[in-house]
Amino acid sequence: MSVPEGLPPMEYRFLGRSGLKVSALSLGGWLTYGGHVEEENTFACMKAAYDIGVNFFDCAETYSAGESERVMGRAINKFGWKRNDLVISTKIYWGSAFGDNPVNNVGLSRKHIVEGTNAALERLGLSYVDLIYAHRADRDTPMEETVRAFNHIIETGKAFYWGTSEWDADEISHAWRVADRLGLVGPVMEQPHYNMLVRNKVEKEYEHLYESTGLGLTTFSPLKLGILTGKYNDGVPKDSRLGASTDKFVEGFNKNVGDEKWQKEIEIVKNLKPIADKLEVTQAALALAWVLRNKNVSSAITGASRPEQVYESAKAFAVVKKLTPEILDEIDVVLGNKPPVLVRRY
Amino acid sequence: MSVPEGLPPMEYRFLGRSGLKVSALSLGGWLTYGGHVEEENTFACMKAAYDIGVNFFDCAETYSAGESERVMGRAINKFGWKRNDLVISTKIYWGSAFGDNPVNNVGLSRKHIVEGTNAALERLGLSYVDLIYAHRADRDTPMEETVRAFNHIIETGKAFYWGTSEWDADEISHAWRVADRLGLVGPVMEQPHYNMLVRNKVEKEYEHLYESTGLGLTTFSPLKLGILTGKYNDGVPKDSRLGASTDKFVEGFNKNVGDEKWQKEIEIVKNLKPIADKLEVTQAALALAWVLRNKNVSSAITGASRPEQVYESAKAFAVVKKLTPEILDEIDVVLGNKPPVLVRRY
Amino acid sequence: MSVPEGLPPMEYRFLGRSGLKVSALSLGGWLTYGGHVEEENTFACMKAAYDIGVNFFDCAETYSAGESERVMGRAINKFGWKRNDLVISTKIYWGSAFGDNPVNNVGLSRKHIVEGTNAALERLGLSYVDLIYAHRADRDTPMEETVRAFNHIIETGKAFYWGTSEWDADEISHAWRVADRLGLVGPVMEQPHYNMLVRNKVEKEYEHLYESTGLGLTTFSPLKLGILTGKYNDGVPKDSRLGASTDKFVEGFNKNVGDEKWQKEIEIVKNLKPIADKLEVTQAALALAWVLRNKNVSSAITGASRPEQVYESAKAFAVVKKLTPEILDEIDVVLGNKPPVLVRRY
Amino acid sequence: MSVPEGLPPMEYRFLGRSGLKVSALSLGGWLTYGGHVEEENTFACMKAAYDIGVNFFDCAETYSAGESERVMGRAINKFGWKRNDLVISTKIYWGSAFGDNPVNNVGLSRKHIVEGTNAALERLGLSYVDLIYAHRADRDTPMEETVRAFNHIIETGKAFYWGTSEWDADEISHAWRVADRLGLVGPVMEQPHYNMLVRNKVEKEYEHLYESTGLGLTTFSPLKLGILTGKYNDGVPKDSRLGASTDKFVEGFNKNVGDEKWQKEIEIVKNLKPIADKLEVTQAALALAWVLRNKNVSSAITGASRPEQVYESAKAFAVVKKLTPEILDEIDVVLGNKPPVLVRRY
Repeated sequence: MSVPEGLPPMEYRFLGRSGLKVSALSLGGWLTYGGHVEEENTFACMKAAYDIGVNFFDCAETYSAGESERVMGRAINKFGWKRNDLVISTKIYWGSAFGDNPVNNVGLSRKHIVEGTNAALERLGLSYVDLIYAHRADRDTPMEETVRAFNHIIETGKAFYWGTSEWDADEISHAWRVADRLGLVGPVMEQPHYNMLVRNKVEKEYEHLYESTGLGLTTFSPLKLGILTGKYNDGVPKDSRLGASTDKFVEGFNKNVGDEKWQKEIEIVKNLKPIADKLEVTQAALALAWVLRNKNVSSAITGASRPEQVYESAKAFAVVKKLTPEILDEIDVVLGNKPPVLVRRY
Repeated sequence: MSVPEGLPPMEYRFLGRSGLKVSALSLGGWLTYGGHVEEENTFACMKAAYDIGVNFFDCAETYSAGESERVMGRAINKFGWKRNDLVISTKIYWGSAFGDNPVNNVGLSRKHIVEGTNAALERLGLSYVDLIYAHRADRDTPMEETVRAFNHIIETGKAFYWGTSEWDADEISHAWRVADRLGLVGPVMEQPHYNMLVRNKVEKEYEHLYESTGLGLTTFSPLKLGILTGKYNDGVPKDSRLGASTDKFVEGFNKNVGDEKWQKEIEIVKNLKPIADKLEVTQAALALAWVLRNKNVSSAITGASRPEQVYESAKAFAVVKKLTPEILDEIDVVLGNKPPVLVRRY
Repeated sequence: MSVPEGLPPMEYRFLGRSGLKVSALSLGGWLTYGGHVEEENTFACMKAAYDIGVNFFDCAETYSAGESERVMGRAINKFGWKRNDLVISTKIYWGSAFGDNPVNNVGLSRKHIVEGTNAALERLGLSYVDLIYAHRADRDTPMEETVRAFNHIIETGKAFYWGTSEWDADEISHAWRVADRLGLVGPVMEQPHYNMLVRNKVEKEYEHLYESTGLGLTTFSPLKLGILTGKYNDGVPKDSRLGASTDKFVEGFNKNVGDEKWQKEIEIVKNLKPIADKLEVTQAALALAWVLRNKNVSSAITGASRPEQVYESAKAFAVVKKLTPEILDEIDVVLGNKPPVLVRRY
Repeated sequence: MSVPEGLPPMEYRFLGRSGLKVSALSLGGWLTYGGHVEEENTFACMKAAYDIGVNFFDCAETYSAGESERVMGRAINKFGWKRNDLVISTKIYWGSAFGDNPVNNVGLSRKHIVEGTNAALERLGLSYVDLIYAHRADRDTPMEETVRAFNHIIETGKAFYWGTSEWDADEISHAWRVADRLGLVGPVMEQPHYNMLVRNKVEKEYEHLYESTGLGLTTFSPLKLGILTGKYNDGVPKDSRLGASTDKFVEGFNKNVGDEKWQKEIEIVKNLKPIADKLEVTQAALALAWVLRNKNVSSAITGASRPEQVYESAKAFAVVKKLTPEILDEIDVVLGNKPPVLVRRY
């Protein structure tokens, strides 16, 4: 299947204050590649993404217990893409997913960061990734040990930038404080959960970090596992992907299906439909455009199990332009979760 | 022989303030592997240890003049254990044990640290150890030279952490002061002699280091070469291992056999028996549990020449729970060597 | 063709305050090698240059889209010159010239500096260059990222010195300030456009940098694409190289051909002829000597498509001696562009 | 020929404040190995030295234009000596001796230090030397460039310590000041000319450096090219080695033969004979012992063209004990060159 005509052009954004540019839409292997999406489809999705200008492909050592890195690495080699045209990431923390003894194969010790990175590069079939993330904060390991270890990874040529995923703002600040003291490099990017229903961390907690550390964001779950597409507005189909995953994040999410919080969220999604209708866009496109309208988002990582979904996502760029201040205000009223503006003078 | 049923589960502890976890019980090659314990038995002991959850195996370049590293390295490869599941250590200082010219093959010069580490890794058949120790302090070499050399070992990927063995507290402080000034890493762990009869260094001399430097301990000789098991209570058998070793530490110990100090220690050990009997445990288990009850001990390194001894050691975890404040007080009265509590305000 | 008799000896100058010496005349591949000059002629020019004592050969990743590095690398290997007798440079910034996706293959991000340098070394067939330049300033990338990345290139043995090309004075100062703060190395040399008609940057803007940072210059275009030779004094021949190049710098220059600025410059060049005649030298030799008379110029990079041009350039050293203060004053009157002397006390 | 009986045992001294020990007597290749001493004799001398406990063998890139390193490297491999039992040095500065273009193959630029060291290691057939010297000071290269380059050599594992040869005291201080500012390592040792007739630099100029920087000395020419043996007391034989060398140092020395300074020195040497006779030692042994009596001398480098000379040198250790304060005073009266004692309070 080839790229449909008329798609808006890809947009590229700097990764925070770094000199690296990532496609504003990117493709991640979480919950899909190496897992329930078979290899042929994975290849097709990655090719579709590359064809529409996606340059950033996101992995983690823990996704499908390493299989995500393996299949994405095969795709990178299969299509003969130039390594320098791509931005490849992986994340270190949950190494024990491979059946390794969990004792030292989890967390951010120097041992796991170095051993985990080496193992990830081998699975990917690459000599370096562009981005390497600490896939959670590890308060049991001294920040200095972690900062030094990621700098070691960069100095030995195994990555160009390091960042965090789902860290608290004060943990990111702490990492920069340690890095500054030692003359080392702090975390350049953070990978948070961000969408219409989950926005506090990105829009309030991290706010001062964008200026004080130059933090860039590569956000995940722009559609909140599909709920923001409106497809569950009339209930969850029995054969839906929800409920099939063994990912802890998804499991936690699944537990909520049908409960009070779930009902409240479905209500909000239903109330967003008139706005989408008025703009003549799908609810999915509206939700994705809403994420992309935030300039602190360097890239919105999407998942896809079919190439059509990749092409569909690209349409969101056209929707961003329709998000006037008035429309955004209307959306905020429906969402009811806009963080207060903090007045700060730097 | 397989793991007996009913053993308490292994406990893992952080190595001081680092992010590395070591099994609270570990297995060392001192006086045993590569020496009087033949290869088959060494393999059996290491497998028994691994099977009960020991992840930390302790070596030194000088143990059995390098043979300890060789045989333990063969074991690691033989059983197909994953490198990242293991914590392997070695120690540099006494390299001249190999028949090398002692002039520069002893001490903590940059030359011996680098050459000694390279030789140890070759004997182990590994590209890195997790822990590397300075096996004594070397006041003839500037601390800066030693601190820089161990950091060089870490930066070149040959070890993850460095530490000391049998250093004085002020020497450890000095190393950290030099490391801080240069933006380098100080010694993370110390390996001292520690048991019921030898406790001053661990409980008094090092006390402020646990907080000021985050020092972790991997202690050796929990049974003081067997005396704490009570097996010499009725005299030393002619065919005992005591007296057969050429290790200087053991030789010094042997010299004491039968003298005033020896008699005094035997007396103490005899007086501990009623407490062991009351708790319905062996004297060996009591002595080992007493070491493990100290939370500054990250790991108690034990020796074993038969798998049964490994399994026996594991029972100590069950005994730790019986060491109530009252029992510990009773023990202290018998030992008569409890250091005074120093009141400090940090 | 062999070296003509009677050429003045080559002069060697320190590259700014560094310990490296470059021939005051050097040969660059810009607009020539890998492009319209065929391989055989390239080899002949490089050999002619080497034979008269040129030790510095200047490349860039973007020259002829990488072909310049390829053919110059083949020449270096072909003649069996010793690597340590040569000073080879390349420049990183415009990597997208190779048909690579421009997104991350341009600028001074860590990614492009590292990937670009590796690719350049492969094209050159060398394991290191002596000099590596940032081929433009990149205000979108933090200076710290760029300074760290070039220091990484030096520490990994891929270059000995790094510098800039066509940066503003304050950008060079900024780089040094960042380098000083981090204990790293700043840019040692700058490669600016410098000739009788373009002198403000070298003689005014950079002036304080020579003392405050020890900046050395490797200047390009001493004859301003030929206009200073006087060959266009009577109009531009139809088959001239002007107008054939696709280089943006040349294109910009070409656009001026015939316009008011061009006419004004031709007028100046015509007025220089009597001075050249009085000194009994060609206008080309006068223009090149005028560049070489500036002691802040470490090397004047020339282009040549035939060996005769190389030999011709060497004659300029004899002309430098004729540039008395009186003659230089006469020239300044004709040029009418001498920057005012800034009185400064260091 | 085997080691004669009754030689005094070798003495080992720390190299200044470093942790490295060098034999107080060492063997250098200057003016001998790779030059007029043929290979078989070189091997015999080196073996004799090794057999009497010499562990330090001194080379330089310039000695016999690299042949000294080649033949000494072959000896090291030939005899199967363990690398860690040896201390091997070389010196970088005069690389142009090999017929290389002198422009960048001399001095202490980063380029020559790195290229020169790599070439020296290849000639030696070693992956590292223990000591690397800057074979002269280079005031044309910034001290920071030189200090960084030698630290780069050490960090890349090509040497353990760096030092200087024939630098002025203020140059050594300057190197340390730069190293301290950058958190790098300064020069650990200096190799000066030192003997009864040339003592000012070692005993006066460098004096404060021994304490302020921990400087160690490896001195050369203890017999001042033989004059201190007394063999020229009755005139210079026609076939003497003096006059045959092309070494600049020796040439300068030769020019003096027979002139006023030479006559004055011969007079002094003659006046030392009664003291040697009184102690019942040769003049050579007295002169060498006089150098060894200075505890700031870590090692006195000697030359030898026959094994007998090596054994002869070793006898000097027995003579050192005869150098009572009274005898040293007697010698000082004859020499007439004792520097005044500077009273300093640290």
